[in-house]
Amino acid sequence: MARWQPDASRRLAQAALDLFEERGYENTTVIDIAERAGLTKSTFFRHYADKREVLFGGETLTRLLAAGIAAAPATAAPLDAIGHALDVVGREAFTPDLREFRARRRAVIAANRELQEREALKGLAVIASMTGALRQRGVPDLTARATAELGALALQIAYERWSDVTGGEEFSDVARRAVGEVRAAMASSDAN
Amino acid sequence: MARWQPDASRRLAQAALDLFEERGYENTTVIDIAERAGLTKSTFFRHYADKREVLFGGETLTRLLAAGIAAAPATAAPLDAIGHALDVVGREAFTPDLREFRARRRAVIAANRELQEREALKGLAVIASMTGALRQRGVPDLTARATAELGALALQIAYERWSDVTGGEEFSDVARRAVGEVRAAMASSDAN
Repeated sequence: MARWQPDASRRLAQAALDLFEERGYENTTVIDIAERAGLTKSTFFRHYADKREVLFGGETLTRLLAAGIAAAPATAAPLDAIGHALDVVGREAFTPDLREFRARRRAVIAANRELQEREALKGLAVIASMTGALRQRGVPDLTARATAELGALALQIAYERWSDVTGGEEFSDVARRAVGEVRAAMASSDAN
Repeated sequence: MARWQPDASRRLAQAALDLFEERGYENTTVIDIAERAGLTKSTFFRHYADKREVLFGGETLTRLLAAGIAAAPATAAPLDAIGHALDVVGREAFTPDLREFRARRRAVIAANRELQEREALKGLAVIASMTGALRQRGVPDLTARATAELGALALQIAYERWSDVTGGEEFSDVARRAVGEVRAAMASSDAN
């Protein structure tokens, strides 16, 4: 696919997604993936620890979120620092050219329990990364944890909407709205 | 161990925990677990779908949380309905006689990635269950999701503290404090 950079990790991820769709996750081996990508098994294992990992390419998301939180203005409230980080994610990771790949990936994961487990663990890593970055800003521990949970919810909502939509809305715009909705939801969770 | 009821699923969980501690999760088979418990492999598979599942006994926690949320007073704020559910969990599941088992289980899970993945997925099931129960009370979707995330955080904090402490404090008391702390943390996540 022309839009893909010819770097090995992306080619492997693309080949894996194609194969998982064609014949199912269980019926695909690491060798199949490497062959389809025109690479070797040992190249695969230089990029990914195992077959599951190929759809969860490294630590890009956790790294971007932590960097985005660190770069937010010093006066920003914890939840606004998360909003800043989601903006960065929209610019650097969830770019419009990747929307179709992410939507297909989401469907493949939804169909397989092993992949769901890996995704759940990655979700915890995302929360831990945001919690750590907020603490670095001097946010007290429990506030950092609660804000990171709410930020992860905003990220998830934004991601679901963005990867579902065929229209042209950018991730950053969807995310900004999601943060506002989570903020309102949070206020009403404590009211009767 | 005398405190264990002689029912098969508990005996299997206890045997599994002993074996995972003695020789590691990877070096233990389902047959080993069944033998140690004085049961057969087919009895194991009547109770648990696979080796991982033996430490995540069924759906007790999600069921209790949903029931506790449903039984909270109609006027309770969403977060207070969670508090009510954690009280139920303290009475029905995290009872003082299980504290030692839960502490050992926590250490075994922390040492194994496969078990961490299963635990992460169970954590999502807990959140989904609380979200569904809150929706049933008429709580709007996003408020239900945000409250369930915060409730899961309170549950996790309370569980960590309760299963760590050698003193006699009951889960319900630890949980009540955790909900209060999460409530305060939530308020400060939106303030600079």
